[in-house]
Amino acid sequence: MMREKEIHQMIYRTFRQGVGVAVGPGDDCAALDFGGSRYFLAATDQLVSDVHYIQGKTSAAAIARKLFNRNLSDIAAMGGTPAFALLTVASHSADKKWYSGFIKSIQKEASKWNVSICGGDISSVKKDVTVCTLTINGWVEKNKICLRLNAKSGDILYATGAFGNSFKSGHHLDFTPRIEVGQFVAGEFTKAMIDVSDGLLIDAQRLASASGVGLVLDTARIPLRKGASLKAALSEGEDYELIFAVPASKATMLEKKWPFKNIRLTRLGNFIGGKKGGIYDLEKRELTAIHKTGFDHFDDK
Amino acid sequence: MMREKEIHQMIYRTFRQGVGVAVGPGDDCAALDFGGSRYFLAATDQLVSDVHYIQGKTSAAAIARKLFNRNLSDIAAMGGTPAFALLTVASHSADKKWYSGFIKSIQKEASKWNVSICGGDISSVKKDVTVCTLTINGWVEKNKICLRLNAKSGDILYATGAFGNSFKSGHHLDFTPRIEVGQFVAGEFTKAMIDVSDGLLIDAQRLASASGVGLVLDTARIPLRKGASLKAALSEGEDYELIFAVPASKATMLEKKWPFKNIRLTRLGNFIGGKKGGIYDLEKRELTAIHKTGFDHFDDK
Repeated sequence: MMREKEIHQMIYRTFRQGVGVAVGPGDDCAALDFGGSRYFLAATDQLVSDVHYIQGKTSAAAIARKLFNRNLSDIAAMGGTPAFALLTVASHSADKKWYSGFIKSIQKEASKWNVSICGGDISSVKKDVTVCTLTINGWVEKNKICLRLNAKSGDILYATGAFGNSFKSGHHLDFTPRIEVGQFVAGEFTKAMIDVSDGLLIDAQRLASASGVGLVLDTARIPLRKGASLKAALSEGEDYELIFAVPASKATMLEKKWPFKNIRLTRLGNFIGGKKGGIYDLEKRELTAIHKTGFDHFDDK
Repeated sequence: MMREKEIHQMIYRTFRQGVGVAVGPGDDCAALDFGGSRYFLAATDQLVSDVHYIQGKTSAAAIARKLFNRNLSDIAAMGGTPAFALLTVASHSADKKWYSGFIKSIQKEASKWNVSICGGDISSVKKDVTVCTLTINGWVEKNKICLRLNAKSGDILYATGAFGNSFKSGHHLDFTPRIEVGQFVAGEFTKAMIDVSDGLLIDAQRLASASGVGLVLDTARIPLRKGASLKAALSEGEDYELIFAVPASKATMLEKKWPFKNIRLTRLGNFIGGKKGGIYDLEKRELTAIHKTGFDHFDDK
């Protein structure tokens, strides 16, 4: 059986990063250094019919919105500000009406965040499949960039929003990327952040693993989206919330200063020394041994 | 029937370009202005199974090579130097062996041009389709950038290499992008260039249309790839050669200074006033009325 992680490992081993790449593959965005006080951020993500949405049931406008906002979620996770995007569509079934709805919806989202869609490509496909990709670029101050590898033993893990039941509830098509939260916490309260797209457990583990620490999750505190079980909240993914590590000395100040009335902030647990990437509950049970960690594109191979 | 051009028109009409976008959709690359003496170039292109290569017959290494080099061809057309890339794969059939061949081949090409593959995404697909995309970034000196809209009446159209029969001959999988040629001619000999990917006739027409001029093509001079008819050379595409407009006063000097012993340089015709985008042969017949202009992804819709 092939796991997504194995391909990622191949990529990390093979792709050589040259001059100007401050952060390469393995974080939410790559960060490029052109000099000056900011990094240029770059990420790309795709939506595939019947994997990321249901063909025939999901409108072109909803597909466009999800594609755009899930890319923005990667910029949010770095503490960045989005700026430019490129777009591709490969589709068998898309007609003029579909493209019209798709293009208008992309522009509508882009306008909210002052993003210029400055290029792209369209292609036909011989079978009934649609694949859309978006490449997003943005900026972040060098001293504010948030990376997966910066969590420290003793830090507190915080999360925005709620988890689980995203697909069935339609949240995955209709969420607001946490750009403003990312910008608020970056540098000031955290240097270690990730967005939860594949699942709270696997994304928390990625943060812990990259940082070389473990994590104790107080599972009773995890905010559940309406209709979600704890299991769903841990493993289903598509939440597009941010989780981030805050030094214990800054936790009270963060909670006091939190300016987002409609965005829930929750203290989920504590980073600890010991096994790198080990995720435990309060009873010291290893959660990744009990629960499916998250969505894997190659689980059925 | 839907034509690719109609979707392009929708895109040009709908997507608003904000601060920092010097060149938006409609050229080979977007050009972003971050200040300084250079533009940052951005383009994205995709390869779709059974559209751009034959599934099962084309190796993962060959697919990767074509994907990478056809994106580089867009950088070449701006007179630019490639620097960074992002990669996505959505595939049903790709297994560990396929990914291994693909990833190594991408890195092999990237190494030749000092390009860092700094991010990407992989996904499964429910049907037997593979879609790969690459986003390429690079740099070009602002005073050397080559755009489609800069050809002038009286300029001479030059081309590199030969045309036609690219798919059957395998050229489309195994060409060298004309980066060095682009850099040599950019600024010094031309400010108007495009790469020929969809077909000599349609790409020449794009150059003429954007520039608001017409073009007389001396069809007898078009270099034919082995096995190619004139019709194939005009319409088939996938040539990945450069065509560019050179002021008549610089033509002799260009031919004299041409440093590429193994790359043929051919004078193909002359830009003229009159009908914008009108392409004629020496007998004043409008070529776009006689020949299919090029590949259209939506010809069968």
